[in-house]
Amino acid sequence: MLNRIGKRTLIFKNRPSIGGYFSVVGNKEGEGPLNEWFDRILEDDKFGEESWEKAESKMVLTAVNGSLETATLTSGEIDLYLGGDLLNQCIATNYTLRELEIPFIGLYGACSTMAESLVVGATLIDGGFAQNLVCATTSHFCTAERQFRYPLEYGGQRPLTSQWTVTGAGATVLTNKSTSPYIAYATVGKVIDLGISDVNNMGAAMAPAACDTILAFFADTGFSKDDYDLILTGDLGKIGLEMLNKLLLDNDFDIKDKLNDCGCMIFDDKKQDTHCGGSGCGCAASVLNSTIIKSLKDGSLSRILFVATGALMSPTTTQQGESIPAIAHLLEIRN
Amino acid sequence: MLNRIGKRTLIFKNRPSIGGYFSVVGNKEGEGPLNEWFDRILEDDKFGEESWEKAESKMVLTAVNGSLETATLTSGEIDLYLGGDLLNQCIATNYTLRELEIPFIGLYGACSTMAESLVVGATLIDGGFAQNLVCATTSHFCTAERQFRYPLEYGGQRPLTSQWTVTGAGATVLTNKSTSPYIAYATVGKVIDLGISDVNNMGAAMAPAACDTILAFFADTGFSKDDYDLILTGDLGKIGLEMLNKLLLDNDFDIKDKLNDCGCMIFDDKKQDTHCGGSGCGCAASVLNSTIIKSLKDGSLSRILFVATGALMSPTTTQQGESIPAIAHLLEIRN
Repeated sequence: MLNRIGKRTLIFKNRPSIGGYFSVVGNKEGEGPLNEWFDRILEDDKFGEESWEKAESKMVLTAVNGSLETATLTSGEIDLYLGGDLLNQCIATNYTLRELEIPFIGLYGACSTMAESLVVGATLIDGGFAQNLVCATTSHFCTAERQFRYPLEYGGQRPLTSQWTVTGAGATVLTNKSTSPYIAYATVGKVIDLGISDVNNMGAAMAPAACDTILAFFADTGFSKDDYDLILTGDLGKIGLEMLNKLLLDNDFDIKDKLNDCGCMIFDDKKQDTHCGGSGCGCAASVLNSTIIKSLKDGSLSRILFVATGALMSPTTTQQGESIPAIAHLLEIRN
Repeated sequence: MLNRIGKRTLIFKNRPSIGGYFSVVGNKEGEGPLNEWFDRILEDDKFGEESWEKAESKMVLTAVNGSLETATLTSGEIDLYLGGDLLNQCIATNYTLRELEIPFIGLYGACSTMAESLVVGATLIDGGFAQNLVCATTSHFCTAERQFRYPLEYGGQRPLTSQWTVTGAGATVLTNKSTSPYIAYATVGKVIDLGISDVNNMGAAMAPAACDTILAFFADTGFSKDDYDLILTGDLGKIGLEMLNKLLLDNDFDIKDKLNDCGCMIFDDKKQDTHCGGSGCGCAASVLNSTIIKSLKDGSLSRILFVATGALMSPTTTQQGESIPAIAHLLEIRN
């Protein structure tokens, strides 16, 4: 029998549950409105390492170890590690795995990686292929800027549509021991590209993908927006979130009162001068694994949709004049 | 109940089956010993496109469409696409997905991607999360050389330990309709790094990972090498395969008479001057989806292990003096 409802939405019958979670963020993120929710705030964005790449690796390792601690599990009790990051060949994650003796499934979903890893992780737990696994991702402002845009030393001016890549990491332990919160449904995203080619306007490139996945989920399940306390996108930022709302309204779907975005939540729009908000794998990962999961645990949230979005271009495709394909994966999480 | 045997090996009880398969290779690969097995051999490695990256995208799209045809399925009947490639941010695959309306799970496992996608795909079919899905990957000599080593125009001399990145793609359709061949077991790899830092000796970097996964599989299952017609590694090449054999012998495990390697099979060692053989995601993908699956279908092979290996470094980590982490994922395929 298929564990699916409608065309694209997966049902989890065995309550793949969130047993552990941990968030690590950089200095700037730690000065933002979610300050009190993060488990660890770095004073030094190099985290005592020689390079930003090594700092990024150390962040995700710290998040993974923290999530194991909250789950009261050792790394020997973790069957699988699912994750990836923004760097070429996902090196922040690959090099972290050298420190952990855990079988590894490497993923690339750009900034959607936190949701992607939880979707695949939930199927593996639900299908009986793992007892405990960890899903994790990370991003770092300094590694991302020099890889995707300009070297920091160049001091390029950021357009007003741009988002600030979050220095942060998050990790979630999924377990087959039924607890709260748990993952009830998931919708895997399609690649959507409406022709946006401005790498300083990622929100606009990703909004159509979020719209497609959200509409697919509600069409598949027949649920209503009123069933949810929050419909949280990954890192569309201010412009992207407005565009998503417009696209949904064009489809006669008004969920504005439920919508929020990790990229809009993580920085203070007025005081922190990030322009359109946060982005990067670490944005959705650190927000989910701090305020969101903690609020699901304490009951202040009871049923949410988490829709992390990713922009799937590279500097090579940008230089070759290509537009930006995007994707969004969705999870329903309940307490 | 857990669908697992031993510590790391997954059991598939519902016969996730290979319903379709297709291989595309470049000119040089088409002149090699597997010439008659490939479904499509390109005359022009640019495949009529403006750039090598676009040619690589078109190769994997051709392989996917070919695999759907052999499975007599339309893209609308495919629930999921699992795959990735070697390029930064997996762009060959991401851009292909724009042409296909299929929900997408992006993977990064370097040259292990064909096996990684089949491992995840088999769990999704077996767990009832998909009816049909496609697993695919690709690599291109020209995109890989300029990204990982030198621009082709530089004309750098290749050391004798180096392998030749295969221009090729392969795609496999997995289905829940029981047919032959099918996937019986899988072992997910761990990241292993014994300190090799020479990017022109990838076989040496990857052999310890292959050794770890093969030993884990036999320890978990208690099977013997005599149960198998062939134990096929992904792209260790000549030196890597010799090293794997030595490492296995150090563990009192003699399977030399069963071992072969896709990188050793795809080129003619004497005539084609590739030094240590083939490598790249497309190497294991095109060999598996041609001679191997066809031989399983016609009964000349009946039970094999397919162990694709991947080297998980990037030019950035190489320049920062890091060694090369590697991984190997294993599948048992039966007819």
